[in-house]
Amino acid sequence: MGWGDLGAFGEPSKETPNLDQMAAEGMLFLDFYTANPLCSPSRAALLTGRLPVRNGFYTTNAHARNAYTPQDIVGGIPDSELLLPELLKKAGYTNKIIGKWHLGHRPQFHPLKHGFDEWFGSPNCHFGPYDNRERPNIPVYRDWEMIGRYYEDFKIDLKTGEANLTQLYLQEALDFISKQQASQQPFFLYWAIDATHAPVYASKQFLGTSQRGLYGDAVREIDDSVGKILQHLQQLGISENTFVFFTSDNGAALISAPRQGGSNGPFLCGKQTTFEGGMREPAIAWWPGHIPAGGVSHQLGSVMDLFSTSLSLAGLQPPSDRQIDGIDLLPVILQGKLIDRPIFYYRGNELMAVRAGPYKAHYWTWSNSWEEHSKGIDFCPGQSVSGVTTHTQEEHTCLPLLFHLGRDPGEKFPLSFASEEYQRAVERMSGLVQQHKATLVPGQPQLNVCDQAVMNWSPPGCEKLGKCLKAPESDPKKCSWPH
Amino acid sequence: MGWGDLGAFGEPSKETPNLDQMAAEGMLFLDFYTANPLCSPSRAALLTGRLPVRNGFYTTNAHARNAYTPQDIVGGIPDSELLLPELLKKAGYTNKIIGKWHLGHRPQFHPLKHGFDEWFGSPNCHFGPYDNRERPNIPVYRDWEMIGRYYEDFKIDLKTGEANLTQLYLQEALDFISKQQASQQPFFLYWAIDATHAPVYASKQFLGTSQRGLYGDAVREIDDSVGKILQHLQQLGISENTFVFFTSDNGAALISAPRQGGSNGPFLCGKQTTFEGGMREPAIAWWPGHIPAGGVSHQLGSVMDLFSTSLSLAGLQPPSDRQIDGIDLLPVILQGKLIDRPIFYYRGNELMAVRAGPYKAHYWTWSNSWEEHSKGIDFCPGQSVSGVTTHTQEEHTCLPLLFHLGRDPGEKFPLSFASEEYQRAVERMSGLVQQHKATLVPGQPQLNVCDQAVMNWSPPGCEKLGKCLKAPESDPKKCSWPH
Repeated sequence: MGWGDLGAFGEPSKETPNLDQMAAEGMLFLDFYTANPLCSPSRAALLTGRLPVRNGFYTTNAHARNAYTPQDIVGGIPDSELLLPELLKKAGYTNKIIGKWHLGHRPQFHPLKHGFDEWFGSPNCHFGPYDNRERPNIPVYRDWEMIGRYYEDFKIDLKTGEANLTQLYLQEALDFISKQQASQQPFFLYWAIDATHAPVYASKQFLGTSQRGLYGDAVREIDDSVGKILQHLQQLGISENTFVFFTSDNGAALISAPRQGGSNGPFLCGKQTTFEGGMREPAIAWWPGHIPAGGVSHQLGSVMDLFSTSLSLAGLQPPSDRQIDGIDLLPVILQGKLIDRPIFYYRGNELMAVRAGPYKAHYWTWSNSWEEHSKGIDFCPGQSVSGVTTHTQEEHTCLPLLFHLGRDPGEKFPLSFASEEYQRAVERMSGLVQQHKATLVPGQPQLNVCDQAVMNWSPPGCEKLGKCLKAPESDPKKCSWPH
Repeated sequence: MGWGDLGAFGEPSKETPNLDQMAAEGMLFLDFYTANPLCSPSRAALLTGRLPVRNGFYTTNAHARNAYTPQDIVGGIPDSELLLPELLKKAGYTNKIIGKWHLGHRPQFHPLKHGFDEWFGSPNCHFGPYDNRERPNIPVYRDWEMIGRYYEDFKIDLKTGEANLTQLYLQEALDFISKQQASQQPFFLYWAIDATHAPVYASKQFLGTSQRGLYGDAVREIDDSVGKILQHLQQLGISENTFVFFTSDNGAALISAPRQGGSNGPFLCGKQTTFEGGMREPAIAWWPGHIPAGGVSHQLGSVMDLFSTSLSLAGLQPPSDRQIDGIDLLPVILQGKLIDRPIFYYRGNELMAVRAGPYKAHYWTWSNSWEEHSKGIDFCPGQSVSGVTTHTQEEHTCLPLLFHLGRDPGEKFPLSFASEEYQRAVERMSGLVQQHKATLVPGQPQLNVCDQAVMNWSPPGCEKLGKCLKAPESDPKKCSWPH
C-alpha cells in the first residue's frame, strides 16, 4: 500500500472512511518510513527494531539489490535476533501473528519459535497458482501446522479477483481480541494481512465497489476491516487500553498499476526504489483517551520505531547488547514532541540515501537496469527525472544529490551544488553517514542462497491432510536478484 | 493554486488548518474543474457561466493556444456577456470584487461597468517591476480610479518575497462584510486575491513559516485569511446566511516549482495543460446549517457552476437567450445528488479532451513545443508519459487516448484501443463531443490583438496622483501565444 492510497493522505477517490476516521481520532504521521522498499526486510526490521543490514535481511550477491523470502530462499530470521514478541512475552503478553510472516519458512524460522504464541496465515506471499510439481502452492498455517494451501483450500480466483482471505484474517483478529479480553490477558496482535499485494483480491462484497478498480476494492476491504477491529475494541471496552498502529511495509507497487497497483501520491516512483514513493508510508496511531484526536505529526518515523514504542508501552527496555535503530515514539505521540533523527534508505547492502530534517541526500541513484526496463519492468511509470531515476547504478558519494522534501516532495529539483544551502545540509548529512557507517556491524546476509529443495513441499501437518509433496534434490545456488 | 496544495487534498506538509476545517464543516469536491488551464479565461468563465470559447476569452491566432490578458491586450469581456454580478444586482445584491479582475483593462471592460459596485484591486497580474517607460507598472484601483501602482505604492519585495497585499485584500473583505451586515444588504463578494501567482509573495508574519518555502508561506497566508473571513461571518451571526466557495483558477504552475510553484498532487502536469494537473482544482463549499458537515462529493463540477449555483441561491434564473455551461450544484451540495454531466477541456480554440464519469478522452495532446521546452519551459517537470505529454500537437480525433481516472488519476496508462471498455466509453464520449460541437456558437475571440498603446499608461485617477504616463503610438499586432 502506498502513502497516497488513503483518503486522509489525499487519494482522489477518498474511499477509506474508517482509516480516515482512525486518523481523525488519533494521530496522522506524514513523514513515516519503512526500513526497506520491499516486504521481507521491512517486516524483519519492524519486528527486530533493526535495519535489515543488521538483522541479516539483505543480500550481498550483487550491489544494492532488493531481496526477499520467496519459497526457495534458504535463509530466514536468525535465532540471534530478538523479536518484539519474544520480549513482550516477558511482560506477560500473548502474541499472535495473523497473515504473512515472510521471515523464512524453514522449520527454524517458524514464528512460534520466535516469540509468537499463535499464528494463522502463511509464510510467503500468495503467489500462484502453482502445479505442486515444479513448485508447491503456499501453505496456510494454524499455529504449528499447515491447514491447507492457497488456491486449493484457500481459494483465490485470479479471473474475478475474488478471495475471502481478508475476511478470514479479520474474523481471526476479532476472535483473538475477544479471547484475550475474556481472559484479561494483555496481547500483541500483528495483523499482517497480505492484501493489497498482487495478484490483488477482495471478497465478493467488495468487488466492483471502488472507483479505483480491483486494487481499490482491496483497499476498501482493508479499510472496512480496520474499522471493524477498532469498533470491536470499543465495544469490548478496551479501546483506551489498546494501542493501535496502521502502516504498510513498502510503497505502492507501481509496476502493477493501474489495475493492481496503488498510489504514492505526489512522491517519486514506487516499491523497489529508495525514492520517497518506495519508502514513505501511510501511518496512523490510535489510542482513544491518550492520543489527542486529530493530531498531525511531522516526526520522521520508521516501522522500526514500532519495536521500541511497543516495548515502552509494555514497560520494557530495548535490548542493550545490540544496536537498535527504532526510537520510542511515545513522547511524539502523547506530548507532541519532535525528535531529531535521520532516516536511512537502504537497497540491499548499500546506503542509497539519507534524510535529515527536510533534506534528503542521495548517495546512489537507481530505478532498475536498462535490461529489466526494456522488458517492461518500470518502477517509475510516467515519471522521469533526469539524473535521478537512473537506469544504471550511479554513485554520488562525493557530491550527493540533495532535495528539500518540503519544497519538493516529488524529488524533481536537485539543489544546486554551489548553493550555501546545499553545502550546509550536505555537511550535516556527511557527519550522520560517517557515524552510521563507522558503527555499523552488518549481520550475516540471509538472502543469498536459494534451493528448490527448501520450498514448502511438506510443511508440518501435511501428512494429516495428505498434502505432502516430494522435494527435489538439494541444489543450493546463489539467488538472482535483478533489482 | 493546485489540487494538491491543501492538507485536505493530501499536501504532505498539511499546513492549511483553516481550509481543512472549512472542508470538515462543509463539502469537499474532489472532481472539480476550472474552465481553462489559464487565469483570464477561467475567470471569465466563472463570471459568465460559459466556456471561454463562447464568451470570447480565447485566441484564434494559432491552433490550441492559451491566451490571457496581459496589459497590451486590446480585448476584454464583451458587453454582450452577462456577468454574475449584473444578474445578482436585480435581486438587490451589492457586488464587490477584491483583487485581480483580469477580464480586460481598457475603460469599457472596467468591472464597475459589468455589474460590480465596488472594486479594490488590479486589472492584471502583479508582474513587474517595470520601468514605466517601456511598460507601466500595474495600477491598483479603488472603484473607478487608480490609487497607486504595484511596486511603487503597493510594495512587493522580490528579493525577500515580502508584500502585504493579501492582508490588504483580507481587511478589505472583512470591512465590506461588516458594512453589508450593518446595512442588512445581501452581498456577493468575489475575493480574487492574486497570491499565489508568481512572483510569489507573503506578508512578513508568514515569511519563512512554511516547510514548503515562499510558495507555502503564501498558501498559509491565504489559509489564514480564509479562516478569518469565515470567523468574521460567524461572529457577525451571518454564517448560516452566507454561502462560501473556495477554489482556484488553474492548476499549480509547475514551471515555477519548487520555489514558486505548488502541487497538483497525484495528477499529471500543471497550469497551461489540459491534463488533470492543469485543470483539476481544490474546491470546498461552506454554509453552516445547510451543508451537512464533512461531506465529500465526487460530482464533476466546474467554476462555471458557481454562476448557476449563485443565481439559484439568489432565487434567479440563468439567462435563457444563450448557452450556459454551468449547472446548479445545490442539489449536489444540499441533497447529495450526483448529476451526470461532461467536463470539456479546452486550450484556446480547440477541444483537447472530455471527461464523462470516470473516463477522460484526449482528442489532442500537447504539453508545449520542443522549441519552448528547449528553453527550459516545462509544464510537466519530472513527468513524461510516452505519447501523452507530447511536445508536438498530436491529434487523436479518430482514436482518442482514453484514461480511467479512478484507476489511473495520473493519466499514465491509456486503455487498450482493442478493449470493450475502451469502445463502450469512447462511443459515449463521441456522442457528447458531437452534440457539443454541433451546438457551439464561438464568441468573437478577444485575445487576438495586442497593442503597446493600450497598456496601463494613464488609468482614470492617474492625474490626481501625478502618475499618468505617456502612451506610445498605437500599433496593433497579432498577439504571440507560444503555448
